[in-house]
Amino acid sequence: MFASALPRLATRAAEAKSSIIREILKVTQRPQVISFAGGLPSPATFPVDALRAAFDAVLRDAGPAALQYSATEGDDALRAWVAARETANGIPTSPAQVLIVAGSQQGLDLIGKALIDPRSTVLVESPTYLGALQAFALSQPKFRDLPVDAEGLQPDAIDAALVRDARFAYVMPNFQNPTGRTLSRERRAALAAKARALDLWLVEDDPYGELWYRNAPPPGLRQFAPERTIRLGSFSKILSPGLRLGFVIAPPRVIDVLVRVKQATDLHTSTLAQRAAAHVVTSGLLESHLPGVRARYAAQCEVMLEALRAHFPRAARWTQPDGGMFVWIELPERIDAAQLLEAAIARNVAFVPGAAFYANAPRANTLRLSFVTVPPERTRAGVAILGELLRERVAAGATA
Amino acid sequence: MFASALPRLATRAAEAKSSIIREILKVTQRPQVISFAGGLPSPATFPVDALRAAFDAVLRDAGPAALQYSATEGDDALRAWVAARETANGIPTSPAQVLIVAGSQQGLDLIGKALIDPRSTVLVESPTYLGALQAFALSQPKFRDLPVDAEGLQPDAIDAALVRDARFAYVMPNFQNPTGRTLSRERRAALAAKARALDLWLVEDDPYGELWYRNAPPPGLRQFAPERTIRLGSFSKILSPGLRLGFVIAPPRVIDVLVRVKQATDLHTSTLAQRAAAHVVTSGLLESHLPGVRARYAAQCEVMLEALRAHFPRAARWTQPDGGMFVWIELPERIDAAQLLEAAIARNVAFVPGAAFYANAPRANTLRLSFVTVPPERTRAGVAILGELLRERVAAGATA
Repeated sequence: MFASALPRLATRAAEAKSSIIREILKVTQRPQVISFAGGLPSPATFPVDALRAAFDAVLRDAGPAALQYSATEGDDALRAWVAARETANGIPTSPAQVLIVAGSQQGLDLIGKALIDPRSTVLVESPTYLGALQAFALSQPKFRDLPVDAEGLQPDAIDAALVRDARFAYVMPNFQNPTGRTLSRERRAALAAKARALDLWLVEDDPYGELWYRNAPPPGLRQFAPERTIRLGSFSKILSPGLRLGFVIAPPRVIDVLVRVKQATDLHTSTLAQRAAAHVVTSGLLESHLPGVRARYAAQCEVMLEALRAHFPRAARWTQPDGGMFVWIELPERIDAAQLLEAAIARNVAFVPGAAFYANAPRANTLRLSFVTVPPERTRAGVAILGELLRERVAAGATA
Repeated sequence: MFASALPRLATRAAEAKSSIIREILKVTQRPQVISFAGGLPSPATFPVDALRAAFDAVLRDAGPAALQYSATEGDDALRAWVAARETANGIPTSPAQVLIVAGSQQGLDLIGKALIDPRSTVLVESPTYLGALQAFALSQPKFRDLPVDAEGLQPDAIDAALVRDARFAYVMPNFQNPTGRTLSRERRAALAAKARALDLWLVEDDPYGELWYRNAPPPGLRQFAPERTIRLGSFSKILSPGLRLGFVIAPPRVIDVLVRVKQATDLHTSTLAQRAAAHVVTSGLLESHLPGVRARYAAQCEVMLEALRAHFPRAARWTQPDGGMFVWIELPERIDAAQLLEAAIARNVAFVPGAAFYANAPRANTLRLSFVTVPPERTRAGVAILGELLRERVAAGATA
């Protein structure tokens, strides 16, 4: 009767594009596709029985309260657990410094709302987490790249001109998405010192920190500069992403601002999910659960690295992760990973071209491989196909 | 060692105030306080056993999938149920027109992000839902008041000048928060016609529509103008607010924009909570559950209205809700509800002064009473105290 037009969109919404990863994942739903594109944790690691028992116990013992509205700050027991764990990791933390959020992606949204004005500056690694670029983009900042080398962020190259008027620097120090790189202890200390000298706030995003393979990573940025660090953590990789639970740790005055913003955004995080999570983590589940997750991811990573050594041409380089879910590949300059993806999908293999992870100056010859959800034999087969496609392109370049 | 300063805040965050309701609720946590201030549904209405069984069944039968990341749009079964219910209510709706959100408050946040640019205009009722003002305020619009009389919104008084450059009109037609008023069928039809004639989009917020006492309310605005209405619904008042589940129904192209925005905001709504909710609602629970909720709220409302008739001075006027959770009181012009609240709290009674619900030109002589969580004898006692305080003030005014 009346055709539906589109309403006038806000500038940021008109500019918002669907994630390329989301588009690739749609293509790769077919079961025959070997997909290294996902960022999903392995469902084999989810503590289903413990969570089932926890939801049941919470609804049995405190049903009406667990189903009611609750405080924006989060569940007292869960905030206390986060604070105690952070304290045990070396930096005294009170529950008043903790805000529970609906996944750390929401933490990024709230930080954007609290700290970013349109056209203000945010400093990011290059490449950096795509979801952070998308979350911050809703607040329409200008992104400025932090200097990065093969070891990650370079604090020594940060100066007053780079930092001028920046609202904060967004950094993922552990097993970074997309590169898998870990920032050394020395660079963390140097970054914290630079932040103090230049009055720069740090947003430390640490969704993967518990997923170390052989040794725990160095102390977090918050340990080096607690007074100017906003730290994000997640239950997605240690319990389950489907619960949508994460946390922000920051000075109380910053938490107060984030609470006001969160109240307007979604009132509070699920009462029931928080209570169930508090039930399992305070029972000590993680101590018995995490070693198995770490061992599984370490083994999956080793399979991927072995396959890369066996099948990839010497002209390609890749990172050697100490934890997390991703390997980052740099191809010879003239090879375009987006074109490689087209050929790979025709052979039923998928990955994410690296260009999407750059705020500025995307490098087309990069790509990200996730190894955590693909069984070993399929990892070997998929990497062999990618290697074949790559060697063809390297050879073509050599004879061109 | 290093004192923590506050980072530079975004303008909107510096302006964001904590909700007055939140502040009042903190004061009224003491058990001796009779609080009409809350907006909480009665926990006695939560279907605890059905939800306990649903979470258990979902985790038993589909544990890993229910704990994994999932599509931004929402769970297929839940979207289909929302679409089928909307269709049964009279307006054919497909799942592609449905987005599941983390409570309808998040729907407001996403609509703000999608449609509001700084300094653009949003039309609101006067008074209107405080949480909507807060959610939209994060996008920094100018609020313009829609004309309202004792029957609610006045479509006949809407003209091109009022609507000029407005991104949308935000309306709560059923049992409005804070007034408890319901818009007549005639005014709904007239509003839809005006919206078409003036090319205005409507945001219809309907969290309370299922909570009718004797008769279902007239058809929703979306039934009169589906091509230009974005409709918000909630599971908070019919199942449980602690699950944080709501939905948006809109033309598919609008849903697509909201999905892109939601992806950047929090990736998706809890997989597990959506599956458990789908489990209970597709089992037909609401058909047996809602009549009891409606009867309880109708009885609580009647107790409140009786007490008002018995104890309040004739100079006060109040609404007669046909559903929902609130009664709205207008006091004589010279009485300030904020001052009344101070006196009331000293007597262990609390409510929300009405000024907070106005985007512009707050009326200090108004207040909101919620009756759903207070037992009858305490409602009578609390209203008697308020009536006593009011009669003192009316008498003082008469002799002044």
